[in-house]
Amino acid sequence: MSRGTFVTFEGGEGAGKSTVVPKIAKDLEEKGYETLVSREPGGVASAEQIRAILLGDQEQILDEYTEVLLFAAARRQHLVEKIIPALEAGKVVLCDRYLDSSLAYQGYASGVDMEQVKMINMFAVQHWLPERTIFLDLPVEIGLSRITKNAREENRLDQAGIDFHERVREGYQLLAKEDPERYRIVQANQSMEQVEKAVLQYIQEVLG
Amino acid sequence: MSRGTFVTFEGGEGAGKSTVVPKIAKDLEEKGYETLVSREPGGVASAEQIRAILLGDQEQILDEYTEVLLFAAARRQHLVEKIIPALEAGKVVLCDRYLDSSLAYQGYASGVDMEQVKMINMFAVQHWLPERTIFLDLPVEIGLSRITKNAREENRLDQAGIDFHERVREGYQLLAKEDPERYRIVQANQSMEQVEKAVLQYIQEVLG
Repeated sequence: MSRGTFVTFEGGEGAGKSTVVPKIAKDLEEKGYETLVSREPGGVASAEQIRAILLGDQEQILDEYTEVLLFAAARRQHLVEKIIPALEAGKVVLCDRYLDSSLAYQGYASGVDMEQVKMINMFAVQHWLPERTIFLDLPVEIGLSRITKNAREENRLDQAGIDFHERVREGYQLLAKEDPERYRIVQANQSMEQVEKAVLQYIQEVLG
Repeated sequence: MSRGTFVTFEGGEGAGKSTVVPKIAKDLEEKGYETLVSREPGGVASAEQIRAILLGDQEQILDEYTEVLLFAAARRQHLVEKIIPALEAGKVVLCDRYLDSSLAYQGYASGVDMEQVKMINMFAVQHWLPERTIFLDLPVEIGLSRITKNAREENRLDQAGIDFHERVREGYQLLAKEDPERYRIVQANQSMEQVEKAVLQYIQEVLG
């Protein structure tokens, strides 16, 4: 095992991950920890190239199994090039999304069997599971209204879109239940200060 | 199941796959079968992009697990876009290399556990296994001498290279033993006419 501590952040759209993660990094730095903040593909050249295929050409329809394999490949390369070296240098690694995103989005909410998505991702990460996974939980409609400036007028999601995000949330809740040792659920529908405090407390459990 | 017939060709370097496959296609066309000859990534745009990452920039070192996932992703996309439509159109599909190449090269000869490589590739192909896999078997040194014009003087492989190709061959022999229903071994160290005749006979077993 490495000397560092690996923490991942998960949740639906608008849950506040990208706001809270840098705050937590700052808090930890002030307490004397060295941190690495990242999110896939994290500036890793080949992982960026893989993402470009995933997000690229709209004319090109990727099969959903191909997508699972490509996300896992990008995840693996980001892990090897960026996360593992930071953990081996003793840092606290805070990663915005990791394998659980594939499990919730591709495995639970989309069409591919969850157990198979899990298997592919376990191959990609091998034994490199985070010590803590912080799930920022929030009712779907609140999260979606946060990410649209004027939710009533623009960017309105149809029911199918809402149903998908509901399934993502259910997926995370299921994953949290399955692995209570690793998962901590933080209610994201509170002030940022409260969220930050709760997250920090859960991370300190594993910082010894 | 599809109406077509799916046949793959496997073997080490210099075994003669790229010579024999078009001949077999011609023989089958003359007998009235429609055929598709392909090899991964087979001109499928996103599969070509994936291959470009695999074969690209020498400065960029891909992790071996990333490689397994990327080969499987390219395989999946080639399968979905090219092989399945041809099988559904009733064609005889002759594919130069398929999942067994990953099993022999990445799983058996390289460092990644064979069972894990098999699992990733079974996810990629799901139930789309070939009805016949023709393994063109050849002593390694003969195969390698075929692909170098003057093997003694140029492109001489060191012992580590030879050992790797020996393991590839052993990998194929093991796979053939494990799945005798699907696999047929053809001794590739005979005249092309003899090889062609043997291959054709094995394919006719499944053409009913």
